[in-house]
Amino acid sequence: MTSNSESFREERDTFGPINVPSDKLWGAQTQRSLQNFDIGGERERMPEPIIRAFGVLKKCAAKVNMEYGLDQSIGKAIMQAAQEVAEGKLNQHFPLVVWQTGSGTQSNMNANEVIANRAAEILGHKRGEKFVHPNDHVNKSQSSNDTFPTVMHIATAMEVNSRLIPNLKTLHASLDSKANEFKDIVKIGRTHTQDATPLTLGQEFSGYSTQVKYGIDRVLGTLPRMYQLAQGGTAVGTGLNTKKGFDVKIAAAVAEETKLPFVTAENKFEALAAHDAFVETSGTLNAVATSLMKIANDIRFLGSGPRCGLGELILPENEPGSSIMPGKVNPTQCEALTMVCAQVMGNHVAITVGGSNGHFELNVFKPMMASGLLHSLRLLGDASASFEKNCVKGIQANKERISKLLHESLMLVTSLNPKIGYDNAAAVAKKAHTEGSTLKEAALKLAVLTSEEFDSLVVPEKMIGPSD
Amino acid sequence: MTSNSESFREERDTFGPINVPSDKLWGAQTQRSLQNFDIGGERERMPEPIIRAFGVLKKCAAKVNMEYGLDQSIGKAIMQAAQEVAEGKLNQHFPLVVWQTGSGTQSNMNANEVIANRAAEILGHKRGEKFVHPNDHVNKSQSSNDTFPTVMHIATAMEVNSRLIPNLKTLHASLDSKANEFKDIVKIGRTHTQDATPLTLGQEFSGYSTQVKYGIDRVLGTLPRMYQLAQGGTAVGTGLNTKKGFDVKIAAAVAEETKLPFVTAENKFEALAAHDAFVETSGTLNAVATSLMKIANDIRFLGSGPRCGLGELILPENEPGSSIMPGKVNPTQCEALTMVCAQVMGNHVAITVGGSNGHFELNVFKPMMASGLLHSLRLLGDASASFEKNCVKGIQANKERISKLLHESLMLVTSLNPKIGYDNAAAVAKKAHTEGSTLKEAALKLAVLTSEEFDSLVVPEKMIGPSD
Amino acid sequence: MTSNSESFREERDTFGPINVPSDKLWGAQTQRSLQNFDIGGERERMPEPIIRAFGVLKKCAAKVNMEYGLDQSIGKAIMQAAQEVAEGKLNQHFPLVVWQTGSGTQSNMNANEVIANRAAEILGHKRGEKFVHPNDHVNKSQSSNDTFPTVMHIATAMEVNSRLIPNLKTLHASLDSKANEFKDIVKIGRTHTQDATPLTLGQEFSGYSTQVKYGIDRVLGTLPRMYQLAQGGTAVGTGLNTKKGFDVKIAAAVAEETKLPFVTAENKFEALAAHDAFVETSGTLNAVATSLMKIANDIRFLGSGPRCGLGELILPENEPGSSIMPGKVNPTQCEALTMVCAQVMGNHVAITVGGSNGHFELNVFKPMMASGLLHSLRLLGDASASFEKNCVKGIQANKERISKLLHESLMLVTSLNPKIGYDNAAAVAKKAHTEGSTLKEAALKLAVLTSEEFDSLVVPEKMIGPSD
Amino acid sequence: MTSNSESFREERDTFGPINVPSDKLWGAQTQRSLQNFDIGGERERMPEPIIRAFGVLKKCAAKVNMEYGLDQSIGKAIMQAAQEVAEGKLNQHFPLVVWQTGSGTQSNMNANEVIANRAAEILGHKRGEKFVHPNDHVNKSQSSNDTFPTVMHIATAMEVNSRLIPNLKTLHASLDSKANEFKDIVKIGRTHTQDATPLTLGQEFSGYSTQVKYGIDRVLGTLPRMYQLAQGGTAVGTGLNTKKGFDVKIAAAVAEETKLPFVTAENKFEALAAHDAFVETSGTLNAVATSLMKIANDIRFLGSGPRCGLGELILPENEPGSSIMPGKVNPTQCEALTMVCAQVMGNHVAITVGGSNGHFELNVFKPMMASGLLHSLRLLGDASASFEKNCVKGIQANKERISKLLHESLMLVTSLNPKIGYDNAAAVAKKAHTEGSTLKEAALKLAVLTSEEFDSLVVPEKMIGPSD
Repeated sequence: MTSNSESFREERDTFGPINVPSDKLWGAQTQRSLQNFDIGGERERMPEPIIRAFGVLKKCAAKVNMEYGLDQSIGKAIMQAAQEVAEGKLNQHFPLVVWQTGSGTQSNMNANEVIANRAAEILGHKRGEKFVHPNDHVNKSQSSNDTFPTVMHIATAMEVNSRLIPNLKTLHASLDSKANEFKDIVKIGRTHTQDATPLTLGQEFSGYSTQVKYGIDRVLGTLPRMYQLAQGGTAVGTGLNTKKGFDVKIAAAVAEETKLPFVTAENKFEALAAHDAFVETSGTLNAVATSLMKIANDIRFLGSGPRCGLGELILPENEPGSSIMPGKVNPTQCEALTMVCAQVMGNHVAITVGGSNGHFELNVFKPMMASGLLHSLRLLGDASASFEKNCVKGIQANKERISKLLHESLMLVTSLNPKIGYDNAAAVAKKAHTEGSTLKEAALKLAVLTSEEFDSLVVPEKMIGPSD
Repeated sequence: MTSNSESFREERDTFGPINVPSDKLWGAQTQRSLQNFDIGGERERMPEPIIRAFGVLKKCAAKVNMEYGLDQSIGKAIMQAAQEVAEGKLNQHFPLVVWQTGSGTQSNMNANEVIANRAAEILGHKRGEKFVHPNDHVNKSQSSNDTFPTVMHIATAMEVNSRLIPNLKTLHASLDSKANEFKDIVKIGRTHTQDATPLTLGQEFSGYSTQVKYGIDRVLGTLPRMYQLAQGGTAVGTGLNTKKGFDVKIAAAVAEETKLPFVTAENKFEALAAHDAFVETSGTLNAVATSLMKIANDIRFLGSGPRCGLGELILPENEPGSSIMPGKVNPTQCEALTMVCAQVMGNHVAITVGGSNGHFELNVFKPMMASGLLHSLRLLGDASASFEKNCVKGIQANKERISKLLHESLMLVTSLNPKIGYDNAAAVAKKAHTEGSTLKEAALKLAVLTSEEFDSLVVPEKMIGPSD
Repeated sequence: MTSNSESFREERDTFGPINVPSDKLWGAQTQRSLQNFDIGGERERMPEPIIRAFGVLKKCAAKVNMEYGLDQSIGKAIMQAAQEVAEGKLNQHFPLVVWQTGSGTQSNMNANEVIANRAAEILGHKRGEKFVHPNDHVNKSQSSNDTFPTVMHIATAMEVNSRLIPNLKTLHASLDSKANEFKDIVKIGRTHTQDATPLTLGQEFSGYSTQVKYGIDRVLGTLPRMYQLAQGGTAVGTGLNTKKGFDVKIAAAVAEETKLPFVTAENKFEALAAHDAFVETSGTLNAVATSLMKIANDIRFLGSGPRCGLGELILPENEPGSSIMPGKVNPTQCEALTMVCAQVMGNHVAITVGGSNGHFELNVFKPMMASGLLHSLRLLGDASASFEKNCVKGIQANKERISKLLHESLMLVTSLNPKIGYDNAAAVAKKAHTEGSTLKEAALKLAVLTSEEFDSLVVPEKMIGPSD
Repeated sequence: MTSNSESFREERDTFGPINVPSDKLWGAQTQRSLQNFDIGGERERMPEPIIRAFGVLKKCAAKVNMEYGLDQSIGKAIMQAAQEVAEGKLNQHFPLVVWQTGSGTQSNMNANEVIANRAAEILGHKRGEKFVHPNDHVNKSQSSNDTFPTVMHIATAMEVNSRLIPNLKTLHASLDSKANEFKDIVKIGRTHTQDATPLTLGQEFSGYSTQVKYGIDRVLGTLPRMYQLAQGGTAVGTGLNTKKGFDVKIAAAVAEETKLPFVTAENKFEALAAHDAFVETSGTLNAVATSLMKIANDIRFLGSGPRCGLGELILPENEPGSSIMPGKVNPTQCEALTMVCAQVMGNHVAITVGGSNGHFELNVFKPMMASGLLHSLRLLGDASASFEKNCVKGIQANKERISKLLHESLMLVTSLNPKIGYDNAAAVAKKAHTEGSTLKEAALKLAVLTSEEFDSLVVPEKMIGPSD
């Protein structure tokens, strides 16, 4: 991100001249921000989906502005330059960090400056000469106050649709397939972490699968408000300095460009002053994180062992666990996933705090909220994919172990109630528990029923659903 | 909650006999819990909506159980007793605190014991004799593991529908009405807390109104999953010890009783082992809290003064602010509301932590999650109503002050750009700022236009929307 | 809390007359708050430790005010009435909820009114006549803005010292005693939830004990800032309307009354405008909750079973787990404790949000922050005591099970490395894992050492510390 | 981070051979992790302070291992290679992301592999030949389970001491200097956002300064537990495979190397299984964030305007606010800082969730907790410096505005009470409020005192402290 160039050119803004590395497309305001906000270093720079969304937006803005009189050759050059930004080709020209102006103004100007200089080059002009002007041309009819919330929504909707949802769907399918694969494996249930009545391993996995399915529904349910774009509200939501209809046209252009059903925001004042849609969507990611934390925890406990744990699942071995113990498979994918879930819960609090602190016509926690939500989306999406590919898909049932535990369980005594009555059944269980024997041994010793009777009654396979 | 009685009767459970105050309907397991969980004192007892929902559920269970063979006279007595619980008439017989077994077992048994003893009395029998049995009759075909999540959902859905949504709707209507009342009052906008271009006070309130409207949508959008009832899953989700169809019938009975569209949960394993629906709904309350925090903050700042603040709003005076300063109106309703919002955000984290820590077939953070969400619902519902009634409804615009600030603002210089160019306009603004004069004075001194020209151009009323 | 009386008397404040139940000591401002803040119902009323701390403070204020000229007979009557408040005798006269003015003004007035009326009665005068005046006498030289933060600090410091720390110390002693009791029981270790090298059960408990010990240190480390009292700052921190030295004298009086080392706050502006000390102390409770969550989780997993879990610990049985399975002991104390921990984490977020939103000379999230921290203190204190008494104290080691798991573990192969080399050792472990045999069987089959050699090398007792 | 090389060499671990880019020093396990954990991309890689701390630790380990028999030439080469890691020279050889094994095993192996290959090169051997062995030599007497918590503590303590505390001290000094500079400027106080009695601007800033001072104390107070190193605990805390005294020696070596008072952890079981020290320190950063949020909020509101806000402070202008309005200075540094504060609050929740989910002998949320705390430290440290340099240092008082507001305030009427009585004073204030006049005008109209009397009584300068 730092320049390799030793040469500089002069760029100007209303504050005066400032030196910018010659090999960079950015201008004066970007350079000034770099110097004023030395916070966090390179890894804190504005997330790439925001940069790309700026590309999308500025391209659409030029297109619509041409309808409203923007010079055609300049408009086309802007569209071409913006397209390069949208494709991530100019990423190295976006050096600014998240921790800047709370409206994202400096990143909007970064986009304007880079696109203006690049468009000028396309038209055969030099950087810094402002043949294409960052404000007058690229930012025409716009304000940081409406562009930044617009790119927040574009970037989020794109990441949700292209990364999170597909990966959750793959995970759901994989869990569902396991539920089907394991549908005949009867195992002991556990409540309060203690032994309980049986269920099938397939039923257990159907719970996980349902959690992920509902998670997908939860996230999708927030999109109608995410598809609303602030563009056209300009500085305070009134739309001053735009023309009537500009807001509708630009939303349509973005929708066409992204193939997503964006519309203009019903109320631009809400769209600039609050980011409740971000808090809401983050809330559903928080719920997804809750689900995945539960699932990953179960899987690592059910796969614990190899000798001194529960040992019902065999997890795929992806890397050396310990150099000395071949049987030890650390549930590393579960660990990566649960760490991601914790971070998503934390980001949600950051987003909530930011969302609640807007004042008057503008919320100025925009870059942090954008960065936090995109971080959560990226991590959840990637970790779901990794977990599915490197863990869930390869899970096998340890049928022997499952069967052994099931048949040792005292909980099967439940089946004897109708035949020998509660008191006798309780006595059988108590005796087995005290003596460490099987239920059958205890039952025969107490002479409450015969071996054949016991075998015909204690059938876990009959305990996994309601009776007719 | 402590008994005034000095006499006791003996009750029994599988642990043996234990003394219970004679004037209380509860039994042995409730009494034991009272002694084992001395945590937090009386104000931590299970929330009333949970108690009432137990009444609803146990009534419906008896009704359905009668279809499956429960003795009719016992069934009817249970229904009558349960109805009394549903109406809150037996609240003093529910002494248990939230901080108990994580499955809510003890509160389920509390309900069973109270209803059994009360039903027995109805049938002319004595307390403690178990003519109506808490387990065999009242809890028939049920387990704490499915009843408690069921009452969690019933209680929440009822509170959402009867308290939160109506109060948010009233608040929305009131904000909307203010937006209309103030639609012609042009005022200065503020971004970054700094002066910006104008908007109407009505536009500003329309943002608040939209936030609340979307908040209602957000909460309602989670109800489909809240209407799913776990009942019928019994101990681990398999439905062991119930009959086929029991789950569907009981959901239908609850729906009829409550007039809410409850259905049986699609997957009972998910319904017992996870409470993602609670995390999700709490997430929407968190978003509502974010919105209300923003609105209340704006209102207290816009109403700040009387002399040294922004002073654009006049807030109703509900109590003595200060004994010495008649003009001082403390925005106490804003303060109560924002404190509630902070608590809702905190409860959301507690619910998230609880929701993520379920293990295997049962999440055992149920009472905490129930208590937290009902707490948030109650506080948000009540505080919205109080805020609407004691603050929003009575807000008046301080038109003089608004007008004064608007016309002093340097931001109106924007209108001069087309006529005198950016550089001249900037010079006017700069001069006015430096000299503390009005824009007009500065413009005339600089001789860039005439008094008449200035008056015809600088018209804030034309700055509140896009141009044609 | 609602009045049983049907008769009313008239009380007055600057707003005019208002009816108050005759049997209540409160006055007009309390009554007005009751009507304006109908939020949450009775269980949301101001926590009792705050009420009691008001008793302490008002008693001390009267004492110091008498040095500065307050009439001696009135002063003494105030001291007597305030002492009754400090002892909790007048709790039913404090009906106000937390969700009121954010400065706690109304609760300060509630205290002033109750004490004034009670003091007047002591002196033979009638309620409502203001022979003893709530403002002029009881609140003399004070403002809500300094009394409320003062009682926040007094109440917290008292709860920390009288409830939380003693209970954590008892828990620490109990865990420490278990660490000692279990010091010779060698068991399998578990990392990543998977089998690892051995340690003693005593070592495992020493980790828990150390966590609690450090937790105590963490909380105590925040007290220096909690012992700083805002009293003397009055309305904005300047101390207007007090006399020089008043602040020091009143802190000394409170210190004497409570036997705790309170001092006057070094900077009264900080003490009114921010409650960072609350955020800080809440942060240490959050750390304690983290520790207790870990300990309780371990104990419930180590005690899982009876047949299909880890089963290394036998937890005390306090109530019927399941009516059908005598061996099932639900870890209910762990469940109550972990629910409390989740709530403490949530309250911490609420307190943080409140603490970050102070404006200018006054933070107006005071009652919420006070209520949240006192809630966390009460719950953590009570739950620690309950957990110690009903769980930790009675934990027994299941030595047979521990020994069985230990000796089945493949991890003991580590000891063979020096003798037969890593490759051979790995082959032994691998064979044992694949065949489900013991290490010894595998070693003998592979003929890498003799039975005697194996027995002399594989000694878990030698694997629990560094070598000489 | 991706390799530019097209050539590869083969590296091996117990899983077999794998190709590694020839120009990279890492080995097989690092390469495998890269492929198994494709989560988040480059910006999610392990924070640099962790990499550097690994350099410090591995250097010290080699030094101590040489005392225990490690070959001297190999030991010295390891020390040299580790020193290069400590200096950040080999950063590009550490490609792994945070979202990996929860014990940080793969980053420990990354360090072992890089140092082994680099040390081998130093000794004239080739990469991948394992002349210096990553496990046997570099990781000698160590386990990921003790090295990773050790580097967590080293990295944190170094960042606290070298970045956060110095920057907070500079900020404190700057605020303190402003408090002194502004000590004679009397201004209106504000409580509940409403006008209140006066104070000096210096007093107001002294509150901020005190908040930062206490923040420093809070963070420093947690260091005693952060200086405890887990090293020597190896796999489960017992120290298996180390020699007695190794733990003490290595802590001493790290202390010498870093000039910080590190000691060996009192209890190694706690040190591996829990990271309460991280939760605790994060809790103090959360408190610091709370303080800075309050300060930054105040400053932006006090600096709001230029015409329609409070306008008491003039904030330095660092960049173009708006291209059209010269007087508009956006409080961008306040915005960056408050966004940072929100993120720190969020990270704190993530760290808390991670800290509470340790199981048995190992907490496996280590990389996330490390990354989160170091993120918070970096952001708070950098943002404090930026805020001080680009905002606080340049703040000027707008004396005219301050004086105007002060003298218009109705609150000064308080001073008249002793002379004309409360009722008359209230009448004056009420009249002034209603008529929009000054207090003096109102007082003279009401003829309650003379102009001279008024001027001698209403002196704000006498209202800023207690009386003699």
